[in-house]
Amino acid sequence: MDETAYGLRVEVSSTYEQAVERTTAALKAEGFGVLTTIDVKQTFKQKLDKDFRKYLILGACNPPLAHKALETELEIGLVLPCNVIVYESGPGKSVVAAMAPLSAMSVVGNPGLTPVAQEADQRLRRALRTLEGH
Amino acid sequence: MDETAYGLRVEVSSTYEQAVERTTAALKAEGFGVLTTIDVKQTFKQKLDKDFRKYLILGACNPPLAHKALETELEIGLVLPCNVIVYESGPGKSVVAAMAPLSAMSVVGNPGLTPVAQEADQRLRRALRTLEGH
Repeated sequence: MDETAYGLRVEVSSTYEQAVERTTAALKAEGFGVLTTIDVKQTFKQKLDKDFRKYLILGACNPPLAHKALETELEIGLVLPCNVIVYESGPGKSVVAAMAPLSAMSVVGNPGLTPVAQEADQRLRRALRTLEGH
Repeated sequence: MDETAYGLRVEVSSTYEQAVERTTAALKAEGFGVLTTIDVKQTFKQKLDKDFRKYLILGACNPPLAHKALETELEIGLVLPCNVIVYESGPGKSVVAAMAPLSAMSVVGNPGLTPVAQEADQRLRRALRTLEGH
């Protein structure tokens, strides 16, 4: 697993479609439901008539964690849900990445959110680790 | 309009329902379509059986700007679309806030994104300003 300034990231030897399916299942196992799905390729084709790689933005939400976060900081909805992206990186290869909750929370600057961000971080790491090796 | 560490914010003398409608129209006038909608109140009731104030998270996307951002930094999907929240702040009063694109982009640390973030910032400010006074 790689860490970027704002994301946790794995490259997997799966087709995009398999990666989407496995990512959704891995998130579910950690208590994250997918509340929203944006098909970036389809959106750009429809709105701009431009071609783009297969690319999905999933809005993943762990309801108890989201509830704690919103009780602590009402406007934290501006950085919720937690984005997870899946895109095609080559033939039979895909990238799955999740927003790093600790970096998102650092922008907010409310120390009360740290425990929630840490738990979200651990759960997302576990979810991404189960995808490694596929 | 107030500015927080991560958001642009206005409080309006509108019911929540009016605020949602006006916000959607104001975003549209600046080229942002609403791609996703999360009803936070409903989600918490369904998933946790907990009551929460009326609160919506809208995923607003300006397709040409999103395309430029993704061409510049492939994994920027982790912070797209731009979240706009609307919530009830009292009887006949609502808050509308948008994620501050410049603060989101500062986490990413790619200077190539600055012009796109600046344009998104200006458009969101104009959209929120049209809500002021209502």
